[in-house]
Amino acid sequence: MTIRIAIDCMGGDYGVKVTVPAAIHFVKSHPDTHVILVGKSDQIKKRLKRHPHDAKRLSIVHADEIISMDEGPAQALRTKKNSSMRIAIDLIKDGQANACVSAGNTGALMAISRFVLKMLPGIERPAIASFLPTHKGQVCMLDLGANVDCSAEHLFQFAVMGSCLVASSGGSAFPSVGLLNVGAEDIKGNEVAKEASEILKHSSLNFKGNVEGTDIYRGTTDVIVCDGFVGNIALKTSEGLAQMLGKYLKEEFHRNTFTKILGLLASPVIKQFKKRVDHRRYNGASLLGLRGIVVKSHGSADLYSMGFAMQRAYEEVKHSILDAITDNIQVPEQKEL
Amino acid sequence: MTIRIAIDCMGGDYGVKVTVPAAIHFVKSHPDTHVILVGKSDQIKKRLKRHPHDAKRLSIVHADEIISMDEGPAQALRTKKNSSMRIAIDLIKDGQANACVSAGNTGALMAISRFVLKMLPGIERPAIASFLPTHKGQVCMLDLGANVDCSAEHLFQFAVMGSCLVASSGGSAFPSVGLLNVGAEDIKGNEVAKEASEILKHSSLNFKGNVEGTDIYRGTTDVIVCDGFVGNIALKTSEGLAQMLGKYLKEEFHRNTFTKILGLLASPVIKQFKKRVDHRRYNGASLLGLRGIVVKSHGSADLYSMGFAMQRAYEEVKHSILDAITDNIQVPEQKEL
Repeated sequence: MTIRIAIDCMGGDYGVKVTVPAAIHFVKSHPDTHVILVGKSDQIKKRLKRHPHDAKRLSIVHADEIISMDEGPAQALRTKKNSSMRIAIDLIKDGQANACVSAGNTGALMAISRFVLKMLPGIERPAIASFLPTHKGQVCMLDLGANVDCSAEHLFQFAVMGSCLVASSGGSAFPSVGLLNVGAEDIKGNEVAKEASEILKHSSLNFKGNVEGTDIYRGTTDVIVCDGFVGNIALKTSEGLAQMLGKYLKEEFHRNTFTKILGLLASPVIKQFKKRVDHRRYNGASLLGLRGIVVKSHGSADLYSMGFAMQRAYEEVKHSILDAITDNIQVPEQKEL
Repeated sequence: MTIRIAIDCMGGDYGVKVTVPAAIHFVKSHPDTHVILVGKSDQIKKRLKRHPHDAKRLSIVHADEIISMDEGPAQALRTKKNSSMRIAIDLIKDGQANACVSAGNTGALMAISRFVLKMLPGIERPAIASFLPTHKGQVCMLDLGANVDCSAEHLFQFAVMGSCLVASSGGSAFPSVGLLNVGAEDIKGNEVAKEASEILKHSSLNFKGNVEGTDIYRGTTDVIVCDGFVGNIALKTSEGLAQMLGKYLKEEFHRNTFTKILGLLASPVIKQFKKRVDHRRYNGASLLGLRGIVVKSHGSADLYSMGFAMQRAYEEVKHSILDAITDNIQVPEQKEL
């Protein structure tokens, strides 16, 4: 089977500059794929000419409009029916693509995906899931910002979806799940967390109980579940801290001529370190819970990062994540009293 | 005026081993202080003998009991009336100490402080506040875990208290305040955040609007306000990430003989970097909103860290933070329609 991925070529900070060469590179390295380039065909064609390729397994679908990064999701949904993002998602609905990748406006992507594709049975809310590096490997964390207020039942559904994502990404077949919560001591979490913990305990998932913020990067569990408010803040706090530490390290090596020389000497190690913590390798957040595979790339993604987002979409198709979620979300219903 | 600080000598992972020498060191370096060592007097005396000091400005108050780290706050409050923590807090109530520092059980410290000292007028909930390093200097963040569910009004009160803490710590006299929230795009925060934003906008505080997780370490504002659930997770996520990055850096420098040599060469820079990000310098979380100054030290605090927690208590007394909070919390009431 050929896996057909639609790519919203106009999305992200760099548009066709990144998306077109990324697509070419992707089909070259994945012989079982076909990429549909969605966007302004003149711009796409111009870019295609710049990069040597054999044009096989690449096709163009023209889209007149572009959804800007600051456009309101409701407006984008209502008014931009000919946008590259909308058409890329429509292609999934019409059965012409198995997945879609976009580096565009997250809110619009979520709203359009939800409107066009609808939710999977048993899932009430979509969630944004991403992998993060840990001491031990990687952890799948969700929700990272789709839902600012969640019920315990939503958190349970996220746990099912996260488990399916791990299993379909070559991770554990029975992934361990942690519920993000606050320190044990006095406080054992808010009401939603307490209730979610009860549901998870009685589910067929491999639930390991509450985990704390420190557990994310320790890799205590394969999946970490939280509401989108907390998840977004944990993720962005990490981003900010990593930036600050990186800046500090750089500053210390640039303090004077002597430290600059030391920096040059140590550069192979620093380079290796940077490679290891390169966030680009974790690019590609899955919009889970929809009747279709949609992957959000970071807006500032470069060619290298974009490949990872496409790989994520590819793996989800290959491992039939939608079937996995549908099958697994039924279990608790059967188990209910 | 002599500033009298009561120290719960039995709290924390190391008890008297750390607290007693830290107290000696503190009175030596602060001629206007007196430290009351609260705990098992035989253990304290034994420790005092080990460290050369002139016994001036140090006194002992015996306490029979110890609150363990895993003891429930309610039980500690009810049954441990002769504990070092309880007696240290009682000393504030009785006017014998101006502040108390403990590295013990956070939940118990909060429960006992609240019960014994009561809340300041106009403050409904105590909050845990701490300083964190930023690109530009430091930021005061609260609540870090005292309250898992907060109302908008609570968040406003935290903002007032955080502003007073910054002003009384040698920071800006009119500190900028940010409300921790999620990305702009679709989602503009949960209901509480939206309401808090409105209250803050109409207050006399220097409110700068919503900030995101990335803004914490960027130092976008002097104060960042959030509920204790989110604050605790942001803090612990940071802790976990910093540990992971530190471990990675170490591993890269220990990969082989060559990288080990590079590590040795680069060690002055790495040392300087570590010093700069040394979390011990930020030890000492203030329990704000009480009718008394209580500072929580990290349980694993060493001699060096403990000094910073004592310094925090000292500064709060010196700059009359309780008066500042009382004065400032009135303002919005006058402003109300």
